[in-house]
Amino acid sequence: QSSVTIYGKVEAGLQKMNGDSLKMTNIHGSRLGFRGAEDLGGGLQAKFQIEHRFSPDTGMDATYSPGGTNPATGVVTPASSTFWNGMSTVGLAGSFGEIRLGRYYSANFLGANNKPDPFGGDGAGALRGIGMQTTHVRTANIIHYSGSFSGVNVAVSTGLKEGAAKAHNSFAVGYANGPLDVGVGADKDAGSDVTNAYATYDLGVAKLAFGLGNKKTAAGVKTEGLLFGATIPAGPGKVLVGVAQAKNKTTDTTTNQKVGLGYYYPLSKRTALEFTYGRDSKAKTATGKNVGGADFTLHHNF
Amino acid sequence: QSSVTIYGKVEAGLQKMNGDSLKMTNIHGSRLGFRGAEDLGGGLQAKFQIEHRFSPDTGMDATYSPGGTNPATGVVTPASSTFWNGMSTVGLAGSFGEIRLGRYYSANFLGANNKPDPFGGDGAGALRGIGMQTTHVRTANIIHYSGSFSGVNVAVSTGLKEGAAKAHNSFAVGYANGPLDVGVGADKDAGSDVTNAYATYDLGVAKLAFGLGNKKTAAGVKTEGLLFGATIPAGPGKVLVGVAQAKNKTTDTTTNQKVGLGYYYPLSKRTALEFTYGRDSKAKTATGKNVGGADFTLHHNF
Amino acid sequence: QSSVTIYGKVEAGLQKMNGDSLKMTNIHGSRLGFRGAEDLGGGLQAKFQIEHRFSPDTGMDATYSPGGTNPATGVVTPASSTFWNGMSTVGLAGSFGEIRLGRYYSANFLGANNKPDPFGGDGAGALRGIGMQTTHVRTANIIHYSGSFSGVNVAVSTGLKEGAAKAHNSFAVGYANGPLDVGVGADKDAGSDVTNAYATYDLGVAKLAFGLGNKKTAAGVKTEGLLFGATIPAGPGKVLVGVAQAKNKTTDTTTNQKVGLGYYYPLSKRTALEFTYGRDSKAKTATGKNVGGADFTLHHNF
Repeated sequence: QSSVTIYGKVEAGLQKMNGDSLKMTNIHGSRLGFRGAEDLGGGLQAKFQIEHRFSPDTGMDATYSPGGTNPATGVVTPASSTFWNGMSTVGLAGSFGEIRLGRYYSANFLGANNKPDPFGGDGAGALRGIGMQTTHVRTANIIHYSGSFSGVNVAVSTGLKEGAAKAHNSFAVGYANGPLDVGVGADKDAGSDVTNAYATYDLGVAKLAFGLGNKKTAAGVKTEGLLFGATIPAGPGKVLVGVAQAKNKTTDTTTNQKVGLGYYYPLSKRTALEFTYGRDSKAKTATGKNVGGADFTLHHNF
Repeated sequence: QSSVTIYGKVEAGLQKMNGDSLKMTNIHGSRLGFRGAEDLGGGLQAKFQIEHRFSPDTGMDATYSPGGTNPATGVVTPASSTFWNGMSTVGLAGSFGEIRLGRYYSANFLGANNKPDPFGGDGAGALRGIGMQTTHVRTANIIHYSGSFSGVNVAVSTGLKEGAAKAHNSFAVGYANGPLDVGVGADKDAGSDVTNAYATYDLGVAKLAFGLGNKKTAAGVKTEGLLFGATIPAGPGKVLVGVAQAKNKTTDTTTNQKVGLGYYYPLSKRTALEFTYGRDSKAKTATGKNVGGADFTLHHNF
Repeated sequence: QSSVTIYGKVEAGLQKMNGDSLKMTNIHGSRLGFRGAEDLGGGLQAKFQIEHRFSPDTGMDATYSPGGTNPATGVVTPASSTFWNGMSTVGLAGSFGEIRLGRYYSANFLGANNKPDPFGGDGAGALRGIGMQTTHVRTANIIHYSGSFSGVNVAVSTGLKEGAAKAHNSFAVGYANGPLDVGVGADKDAGSDVTNAYATYDLGVAKLAFGLGNKKTAAGVKTEGLLFGATIPAGPGKVLVGVAQAKNKTTDTTTNQKVGLGYYYPLSKRTALEFTYGRDSKAKTATGKNVGGADFTLHHNF
């Protein structure tokens, strides 16, 4: 039993988005995980990690969908559930880095796409989806390599196509040295290509972040995203702030222009309160309001 | 890892109900749970608890339903699964009591509705559903408060409506002092209102229980339930016995009149055998038999 | 918490079968299990064990099926998921043997059917399905007894019919003494009867295995299977080799004639690499190729 570590997070709170009712929410993804490692000798380790994601408000698997029939078209969407949505991997690690097989994050997501957003891409204040143009968080059937060498972080992943038109390939390269962290990455699949670049610099009084995201769909539509963020230690916690923009380069239209603001307040080492707010001055809800809202959550890690 | 406690129950046995075949059953709800707490200082604690329910006879999630199409009406019921059906909460606890957010029991269920039935509402002998008129066990999107002050137990919960017609609100107040425990509670939602009252008194040779349950549906139909029960230490275990009745006040018809009888036999601190029997002298099966039956199960807690 | 042991296996690798694309695979069944025991005194124990099976390549429950509609017939297959597919049992154990209630292996599967195949019935090299004619691995609503007395291993199981046409009954008897292990078993249900016989003998330089499998369907079709296998210690690991054949006795046609070859290479006590290859000289794919292929996987037990 010493070979298994149980870990996780349970988070719940309230969210009010324009055009929607007040809801119980869970912005960072509540989870229950099991991981372990075994020394194989010669500096080599075998490792496994499986991580379930769930929605505390309903008690359901976070990915659970009952499916349904479109009343207009009659098209049936089957039910679906990816219980170990967070990840499910086995692999080997050593001085060469780490290889994981299974379901896991794309190389670009961990290595570049998710780096600059002060909100981690989550909640009403999230900027990642707009500024970094995220198309892949995780991939099934993945072979994922990552390694760090003198501050240079390298990651490459491929999700086997298994009969589909095209595999999902991804890479990221970064360089971290003291307060500086910069890098680039890309995701390529049958549907779209995304390329990301980021730079973060920790001034002490604030950690500044800059990100670029470019997407090109198979149909040729190009989108360009931009993100500026800052994480500012303030009182016992930290202020999260940033802006992000997305422009359709094909039509030369700015589709999203969002500001995010938040405060993260730790109650202890493993428990925190978090408030985030966001407002998009371009994107509108179905009833013509600006897309935006706020949330306030309690999170507890174990 | 010291921050997580694993607990649960696996139960299996046989049940034979009138009009149905002999089946493997699981009356009290087999479960696997994870819980933990962290001291935040000042007497405050962060707590989480997630509890899965399953059916050992099939190995399936206890709530799993494949959905289906009604052949007569063509109406499609989508598939469903609430993996953490028992509960999934995070919250804060201190001298003020405890607040839980997520999926949890209604205040009335824990505080009044489930108090008097010697059978805990489970198995062939169960009286709760008839005498206490249970409409809510648990609710999604809940904010649940409970506290105890000098023997007075208070609980209030609200399940956010999230766009539905009405929220589910609930409360319970009880007073426990030595052998006596009395209280009242209520559940209110868009479909029906339930109010419960209970009193239990432990004479030593037997713990007596009395319960009242009143339900009023949105359409105005009123039902009145009544429950008498006793838990009698006998030999190494205890005899469970009681009667319950439900009367439709609108039509002045007694719809259910049930007797329950059982024996709980502990094999050890964590393992027990249980037999329960019930017979309703009013309610009939599709083939005209009295609703009723018996079950015999082995339960093991961990 | 001392009462719960967590165990499992995560396995992933690549498989290429004739007529199919290269896929990520998981031949032995990745799993996460929880088990425990409690002494009841007098040599008696209460035991529980629940075991989830999952697919690391997708992160999904291994049994998850979204269901669907047959476009030609309109017949709807509902969604399904047996989360604790491995097993979910509670029971009692003592000098008399062990009784388990819940979902579990059939007596024949554990006691005879799965004994001779060097591949354990898994992967491209698997011989069990052909030589031993497997119809039941596990059964719901099972009462399973097993016991060992002076080298004689006895198992009997019945899966309650619960309204179905017929229960699933099974037994197995074996005798193990030093290098020798021989036995017979059978599964009987509404659909088909299977009888198995096996003998394995460990010569030291190789463990030889022989198996027989006979199946008779309710419609009267008879199939006879035959299996020869050897597990040969070689270098740090072991070579797995064998042949299996299945003949339709009703039409006097040999439907399958398969050779399996593999190598199991332990990297440590709990981690291994495995290669298996198989080729059926009789069975053909949809495009007329011989059914067959190869896989290479990493497995890690915890």
